[in-house]
Amino acid sequence: MKKIVDLAKKRGFVYAWSEIYGWLANAWDYGPYGSVMKEKIKNLWIKEMVQKKDNMMLVDAAILMNPKVWEASGHVWGFSDPLMDCKSCKARHRADKLIEEDYFKKGIDDVADWMSKQEMQNYISENDIACPECGAKDFTDIREFNLMFKTFQWVTEDSSSVVYLRPETAQWIFVNFANTVRTSRKKIPFGIGQVGKSFRNEITPGNFIFRTREFEQMEIEFFCEPENANEHYEIWKKDCMDFVQKTLWISAENLRFREHGEDELAHYSDSCFDIEFKFPFGWWELRGIANRTDFDLKAHMKHSWNDMSYFDQVNNKKFIPYVIEPAVWLTRLFLSVLVDAYTEEEDRTYLKLDPKIAPVTVWVLPVVKKLSAEAKEVFAKLTDEFYCEYDDAGSIGKRYARFDEIWTPFCVTIDSENYDAGNVTIRHRDTMESEIVAIDNLIDYIKERLK
Amino acid sequence: MKKIVDLAKKRGFVYAWSEIYGWLANAWDYGPYGSVMKEKIKNLWIKEMVQKKDNMMLVDAAILMNPKVWEASGHVWGFSDPLMDCKSCKARHRADKLIEEDYFKKGIDDVADWMSKQEMQNYISENDIACPECGAKDFTDIREFNLMFKTFQWVTEDSSSVVYLRPETAQWIFVNFANTVRTSRKKIPFGIGQVGKSFRNEITPGNFIFRTREFEQMEIEFFCEPENANEHYEIWKKDCMDFVQKTLWISAENLRFREHGEDELAHYSDSCFDIEFKFPFGWWELRGIANRTDFDLKAHMKHSWNDMSYFDQVNNKKFIPYVIEPAVWLTRLFLSVLVDAYTEEEDRTYLKLDPKIAPVTVWVLPVVKKLSAEAKEVFAKLTDEFYCEYDDAGSIGKRYARFDEIWTPFCVTIDSENYDAGNVTIRHRDTMESEIVAIDNLIDYIKERLK
Repeated sequence: MKKIVDLAKKRGFVYAWSEIYGWLANAWDYGPYGSVMKEKIKNLWIKEMVQKKDNMMLVDAAILMNPKVWEASGHVWGFSDPLMDCKSCKARHRADKLIEEDYFKKGIDDVADWMSKQEMQNYISENDIACPECGAKDFTDIREFNLMFKTFQWVTEDSSSVVYLRPETAQWIFVNFANTVRTSRKKIPFGIGQVGKSFRNEITPGNFIFRTREFEQMEIEFFCEPENANEHYEIWKKDCMDFVQKTLWISAENLRFREHGEDELAHYSDSCFDIEFKFPFGWWELRGIANRTDFDLKAHMKHSWNDMSYFDQVNNKKFIPYVIEPAVWLTRLFLSVLVDAYTEEEDRTYLKLDPKIAPVTVWVLPVVKKLSAEAKEVFAKLTDEFYCEYDDAGSIGKRYARFDEIWTPFCVTIDSENYDAGNVTIRHRDTMESEIVAIDNLIDYIKERLK
Repeated sequence: MKKIVDLAKKRGFVYAWSEIYGWLANAWDYGPYGSVMKEKIKNLWIKEMVQKKDNMMLVDAAILMNPKVWEASGHVWGFSDPLMDCKSCKARHRADKLIEEDYFKKGIDDVADWMSKQEMQNYISENDIACPECGAKDFTDIREFNLMFKTFQWVTEDSSSVVYLRPETAQWIFVNFANTVRTSRKKIPFGIGQVGKSFRNEITPGNFIFRTREFEQMEIEFFCEPENANEHYEIWKKDCMDFVQKTLWISAENLRFREHGEDELAHYSDSCFDIEFKFPFGWWELRGIANRTDFDLKAHMKHSWNDMSYFDQVNNKKFIPYVIEPAVWLTRLFLSVLVDAYTEEEDRTYLKLDPKIAPVTVWVLPVVKKLSAEAKEVFAKLTDEFYCEYDDAGSIGKRYARFDEIWTPFCVTIDSENYDAGNVTIRHRDTMESEIVAIDNLIDYIKERLK
């Protein structure tokens, strides 16, 4: 893992957060290559999940939502972590995680997050659990810390009004279900997708960009008739796995499905599958597909007094739709792509990225500097379609090395003999082989190979 | 303006914020058509401003930045509005705006935001200014309200640490200047662009999505040698105007340059031009191009003790670069596109949108329902490249009407005679004329017309 983090920082994929003022809190920014690659993953998701389906729509809502939404959804009261501080070293811990570490040591295969506060406290004192930081056994009582970031917006005179940074993008879609049906004229089954940032005040962010307080989600809520929910659930399971495997090229051996057990299911969920990825720190959730039933629409109906039922004109019947939720964290997907592409060979280390998402698609270089006008002409033509880099510095051998290092799928070289005949040389990253291609066909040639 | 807001709400471009729980605070969300159109505008900006230039990079940083950044930039102390409350009706006002309204009534062409707190207070009492809401003349003293949203992240034991939601995306770029130079190997002149949300706790949001507390910026910081700053400034002025006029099709008569006067220039700025758009509520800033000199890099150098100078290897000289900032608010650009495209004719009202940014590019319909399998095949082919909608409900006449209403540039009709010959009919929004096109050429045909 350390190697991947170092590579990502060195090559400008990911930067440590506001580093010159002292980095803290496991926060990260996306640098030139990282931001382009993240943008490409996002655009592929929008294309495959929204654009190419005739029953999907996109939305983009505010991060600061009406606080009543989070009261209705239960987040204001229930979205919290049980925390306790070590009185000796002041380190803060999640009580359920302390217990689970103890389970793990004892070979008990269980989770602790459904224990009551008192049960957790009892377990910790009875089992003599020590602070992992300093070894002391003197904790404060458990307190519940809400994971939502809170802020205040000024509305009228002296009053201040609390708003929360959304902890997920899904709730907006439920809240606006009726609105969307009215304005879009879509008929059930249909789905709504959203890409955007969410915020959770995690006490233990970590593992690079795997768990951060600020992250990007790509969530879909798919509304269907209750009796067809299982069928759509299976279709989405397949579509989600296809996206990570076939569209993003993540190796099958690093992916698996895992079904949630009875005691692990959230209260709103009928069934849930995770797609897990084999990170260097273990198998962890990459995306989840849940059958949320009609729980959310009913909750918002109750709190808002708005009718959330759907009227099926053909069959003249009214019902509350069921919801299938295929959700993924963009930033976590980004990490899995980096991990999966990281390749060490005897003489080179590189990222074997899918050409579609490699941050630089084409690297353009004149063999000699006096051809730079011609090379820039080719560059200008290609940038109309692809992310390219131009390089005329140093020997051609050195530049080829930089090109390999930078895992760009195609390298276009301009020399005078070929150029005069209307051609360039194209070199492929993976095979290191070269071909002569006509400049007029260059764009189509590359496009064909990106499919 | 009201007509545009109504149209935007009715057709799912923009929704009122969390409406079912009672809308407040002039906040808006982007619905199915709006979010796709916003995404297209953004992608065009990235393509024109970053991808097609060989000296531009993209970044994507966290919204919650290290608070020390905002201390160094002066935002913690200086980024505030002078507010006073009416003691009678409790309405809150910006003192400088009250004075400017008074100026306007008296025909005085001046701004008030450089007056001191005491001067403003004196002016208001001496000139007998009344509360615009209730007419009373009894205000509280002026207090400074910082415009940054403040929140807290849990770091260690009991301490809580303040973080701010960024009020602009530009500062990140200054803070990471040295980092970017090191990891990208780019040579000056080069620029860094960023698209992302920013937040300002405005006391008077309004005019639909023109001024909102949460908004999206597209900012560029372009680093160059001080002696070439003016030259780059002029190039960016032209590029910015070209983008709104030629790429986004905004009419020239609704756009103008306006230079900032001496007393209007921010303390960090050497010169500044706005591109203004003629909104229904007057000429207002759409984007700004400023010469920020070396002010920001020097400020962060001083506060962070990090060296922000640049070493020019060719000329063996070290200097602090000057910065040209071409900045635009994506959400404001979105509004100007809507306003500019809004067209009322005797028999129809529609949005004359540039085909490149129209939310739906192609509308696919079978002449009769039994051709839906064939039509869906064409639809599937087209969605690989374009946003499309499929429609087989109702008479063909009714569907054409919906298609016009929805300002989709192309409508593809499938009838059996043409389909058997491998063709479809394509109808153009603006001319209402039809052509027969081979299915195999359809994608290229449409692509050609989107250029």
